[in-house]
Amino acid sequence: MPLGQRQGDKSDSRYCGVEIDFDDDMPQALTRNLSGGFDFLVAPLIDPKYRPSLARDEANVSNVLPVAASDLVLSPSQWSSHVVGKISTWIDLDSEDENIRMDSEIALKQEIAWASHLSLQACLLPSPQGPSCSNYARCVNQILQGQNNMQLWLRIPLVKSEIMEDDSVGEHSVDTWEWWNSFRLLCEHPSQLAVALDVLRSSPSVTSLGRWFGEPVRAAIIQTDSFLTNAKGYPCLSKRHQKLITGFFNHSVQIVISGQLMHNVSLETQVMKHDDNSTEVMPKHSLRCYLDYVAFLYQRMDPLPEQERFELGYRDFLQSPLQPLMDNLEAQTYETFEKDTMKYSQYQMAVHKALLDRVPNEKASTITTVLMVVGAGRGPLVRASLQAALETGRKLKVYAVEKNPNAVVTLHSLIKLEGWENMVTIVSRDMRSWNAPEKADILVSELLGSFGDNELSPECLDGAQRFLKHDGISIPSSYTSFLQPITASKLYNDVKAHRDVAHFETAYVVKLHSVARLAPTQPVFTFEHPDYSVKKSNQRYKKLQFEIPPDTGSAIVHGFAGYFDATLYKDVHLGIEPATATPNMFSWFAIFFPLRTPICVAPGNPLELHFWRCCSSTKVWYEWCVSSPYPLPIHNSNGRSYWVGL
Amino acid sequence: MPLGQRQGDKSDSRYCGVEIDFDDDMPQALTRNLSGGFDFLVAPLIDPKYRPSLARDEANVSNVLPVAASDLVLSPSQWSSHVVGKISTWIDLDSEDENIRMDSEIALKQEIAWASHLSLQACLLPSPQGPSCSNYARCVNQILQGQNNMQLWLRIPLVKSEIMEDDSVGEHSVDTWEWWNSFRLLCEHPSQLAVALDVLRSSPSVTSLGRWFGEPVRAAIIQTDSFLTNAKGYPCLSKRHQKLITGFFNHSVQIVISGQLMHNVSLETQVMKHDDNSTEVMPKHSLRCYLDYVAFLYQRMDPLPEQERFELGYRDFLQSPLQPLMDNLEAQTYETFEKDTMKYSQYQMAVHKALLDRVPNEKASTITTVLMVVGAGRGPLVRASLQAALETGRKLKVYAVEKNPNAVVTLHSLIKLEGWENMVTIVSRDMRSWNAPEKADILVSELLGSFGDNELSPECLDGAQRFLKHDGISIPSSYTSFLQPITASKLYNDVKAHRDVAHFETAYVVKLHSVARLAPTQPVFTFEHPDYSVKKSNQRYKKLQFEIPPDTGSAIVHGFAGYFDATLYKDVHLGIEPATATPNMFSWFAIFFPLRTPICVAPGNPLELHFWRCCSSTKVWYEWCVSSPYPLPIHNSNGRSYWVGL
Repeated sequence: MPLGQRQGDKSDSRYCGVEIDFDDDMPQALTRNLSGGFDFLVAPLIDPKYRPSLARDEANVSNVLPVAASDLVLSPSQWSSHVVGKISTWIDLDSEDENIRMDSEIALKQEIAWASHLSLQACLLPSPQGPSCSNYARCVNQILQGQNNMQLWLRIPLVKSEIMEDDSVGEHSVDTWEWWNSFRLLCEHPSQLAVALDVLRSSPSVTSLGRWFGEPVRAAIIQTDSFLTNAKGYPCLSKRHQKLITGFFNHSVQIVISGQLMHNVSLETQVMKHDDNSTEVMPKHSLRCYLDYVAFLYQRMDPLPEQERFELGYRDFLQSPLQPLMDNLEAQTYETFEKDTMKYSQYQMAVHKALLDRVPNEKASTITTVLMVVGAGRGPLVRASLQAALETGRKLKVYAVEKNPNAVVTLHSLIKLEGWENMVTIVSRDMRSWNAPEKADILVSELLGSFGDNELSPECLDGAQRFLKHDGISIPSSYTSFLQPITASKLYNDVKAHRDVAHFETAYVVKLHSVARLAPTQPVFTFEHPDYSVKKSNQRYKKLQFEIPPDTGSAIVHGFAGYFDATLYKDVHLGIEPATATPNMFSWFAIFFPLRTPICVAPGNPLELHFWRCCSSTKVWYEWCVSSPYPLPIHNSNGRSYWVGL
Repeated sequence: MPLGQRQGDKSDSRYCGVEIDFDDDMPQALTRNLSGGFDFLVAPLIDPKYRPSLARDEANVSNVLPVAASDLVLSPSQWSSHVVGKISTWIDLDSEDENIRMDSEIALKQEIAWASHLSLQACLLPSPQGPSCSNYARCVNQILQGQNNMQLWLRIPLVKSEIMEDDSVGEHSVDTWEWWNSFRLLCEHPSQLAVALDVLRSSPSVTSLGRWFGEPVRAAIIQTDSFLTNAKGYPCLSKRHQKLITGFFNHSVQIVISGQLMHNVSLETQVMKHDDNSTEVMPKHSLRCYLDYVAFLYQRMDPLPEQERFELGYRDFLQSPLQPLMDNLEAQTYETFEKDTMKYSQYQMAVHKALLDRVPNEKASTITTVLMVVGAGRGPLVRASLQAALETGRKLKVYAVEKNPNAVVTLHSLIKLEGWENMVTIVSRDMRSWNAPEKADILVSELLGSFGDNELSPECLDGAQRFLKHDGISIPSSYTSFLQPITASKLYNDVKAHRDVAHFETAYVVKLHSVARLAPTQPVFTFEHPDYSVKKSNQRYKKLQFEIPPDTGSAIVHGFAGYFDATLYKDVHLGIEPATATPNMFSWFAIFFPLRTPICVAPGNPLELHFWRCCSSTKVWYEWCVSSPYPLPIHNSNGRSYWVGL
């Protein structure tokens, strides 16, 4: 039974599980817990007393595994939708004792094979005993080579002790994120390996918790002894825990309740309906009070805002950036972007202010301002400009320059429909080669990509600036790109799935969701328009040093998130840089530059990134590399994998 | 003119070059220096005063590069065999000044393009200005994408300041190996990028110099002011320098003399013959005394020993290990291995001692010892065993078990030829399935690979031990494998050339030469025979921690060199572990386990390696991984890339 209804939320986090002990009456255990309100069980599959070496010694010739239940006692769909297999916790692949290691390896492989046979969706692997878990990783890695669908959830206690200022060696500090990190690096980021976090009574700093939101966390197991008691004697969670759980809900993490009843609440009864329609009155599930509290937290959350719901399908989904210079956009794309009213109202305000600066009130009726929209598309900037002229009472002559002949068709109809024929001249040309009949006072363009200059706005406006008056205004007047390092397991694995280098040397437009932003953004490249300097070049090189806050702990960087901010005119700006983003704008998602090899950054080690914008006569591309904490290969040399055509 | 004749040496290190200043009369410069005894010039190709930005400003419409000489003034073969292009030293791609960076990039690309046009074999790139050289690396990396043959030698001054014990931060320490390392990591180990070391007056510790012998060093440039002065006023080098130069000679590194005459020697004259057969008396080359000294060092070296000369062609050449169980060896292979007299005399000594221990003198004439050679091949161990029986006066009955029917043919002839019919019984069977008619006192085998157990000696002897008496002797009685981390650029690049993961997860037999052994070897797996333990398993797991000596500095690990040592019987051993290797034995080269990603190890950081020997019913394989300083993927999971068939 889902925790509740939340508008727009279709994620797994609506389902709550319960961890149970070994029970050889699985049908009964399933009925008891489902009727108690839980959606699934985390249940041992094999008798925890079983040891392969003992079984062999006993000359058990039949060699039947002591399983909790044969595959026949539950239907296949019951097994797969309601049971997560819990692998025996005595298994310790990194024991000093070779016999335990041997037994562990055999048992682990047997249990996983059994779970596969039952078509379970997932198994919960016991937590590594410490940071040194290479043999465990090797064995799981062998298993993963043959696995196709079943997820393996590695259980990790959520512990990170804070390092004292003077504890430079940090030998006593424990950060269980490191256990997970070693494990997945040794196994090479397998997509079927995920994390189940054990939420304990004390919880690490918010900064260090943030790392997990870039990792494939599938479940959070809350121990009943982590709950506090409220005034009425009922279980509740600390503010910090509440925030954490809400975070999990927002990232499709399922909650699992584990442990004994620790609260002195009266166990009410409930009426239970059997398959044969008979009913029975029985006590409520002993852990029902914890489930109710979790459901309360879920139901208390605000509904997803409309824009979020609209963008839900795009979350962490990699898209290739547009090539608007080489390709012509489709009507659907124009349609979508034109709906972004926030964007065009910013443009309108910029033109408004520029017109006022350009023409004093007393000359409003005599001076006609020449405004050129370069890249007019189907006309939204023409409309915004005319609106601004109307608002300010300035006379305006508009040239709408557009290279896409298909968009020009629509533009024509629009102008006829609106009766703008006297004010607007349509020019069906590429702005870089058009010979304008007169010079413009104001040049308006919307050529910006998610990373600012990545759709070649600089090159286009360099071409267009020929027909701007020397004291003319470009809207936008400047734009700057920004970068920040992120943990993004999902994106990394999606890139890796292509199994080639080229996809790792490509930038992607993506609605970032399951990522950890590890450091504040930093500015990268700035372009200003117009620019009349002599040795003008659109090549750029920038070296950036990111400091990851020390209380984060170590973190893995899968790549860099890119954004832009543009100054349209004076104080009117537009952008997606998180700290200054224009609200309610949906035209741009972020851009993601991956790293071929994710890099681990320890506290106190700066992360040094080099970024280049390179230009040839036919294309523009970026190259990037990390040089510290240790050097990684330069990505996309000569634009071999990813470039934007001129 | 080569430095001298050294028996067996066909390497480039016989040729000595000279670095010259810009000279626009190249034919004359070439004649002067070749007649002066040098083999090649390191010469600037472009006027060092040239700057692209100035050339542009001067409206030099013809845009002719100020080259030292057109391609026509020397023949193509003169250009390519006698000239190394020296790229302008003013070039600084990591300057703070953007204009210098821009000029540098244009000039570097122009000069390399010109050198390519001349079909030069190599160009000398100026040294990076410090450890931060990412933009330089990016530019060279772009150039390398389009280069096919021309080598680029990155000039690196040979400097490593020692770190004081208390200087834990080490901010003032300089280790130019790090410059090279960053550069090549950023460029991703390109095979055309090599090193030219500038040998200076002071030289770093021998341990740190050792690293360079695993790197692609092509030239060592000795400054004339690095030479000392001997009693007669002539130049000479310090002992440490002499040792270094000898090391270079042994690793195909060419010497280049650079600088002015710094010694007060009288310049003798020489007779010079012109092309038209006229002669001219002219003064000797001003740097001749340095060349003579280098030639003296070369000529003073011992000739290559015969075994080295025999193995010259195998140096750093990767071979797949034999699969003697699955494949039958060829006659040529038997032929080669049988010539290893050292190996068989060790076996003979082992059998000798075993026979004496087995049969006391007084029973020598009554007791017949049963000895089985398992894997008899064409009979060398049969011969050694009979020889031992003769020496000791013991009576011997030999079973020669061999699965290869082709080898059995030869074995038959041998026994007939030698008249051993009464003593030797041939068994044409696989030892694992043969039912022996009686039990053996002594079991002799030579099933060892370079890594000891890697040709499945354990599995074979497990099968054969059925027909060994319970107090019987196995020769060998035990063997142990060893590993050590190495720098091996050449091997790494050869593996990388296959462009797949599988070749990085394969072990290779290789005569290691251009490698740096970074830490002492450590034992890995040991097998003992016979072994009657109950829970016997040939699976193994070993965790090794290597400490690289701190005065080495940082180093890169391309993989691990493997060896074995076997105890044949009591104190008679046989092996290739470097510290204890049996001399004059050529049956085994080392084994090399590569790493998919080379790992950098900084001083004081232990290198942790995990090694597994895994067994299934059909095959045996190794898996390996590095977990510290940071975790790398587990190699060869489930033997997916490399395995030995049972």
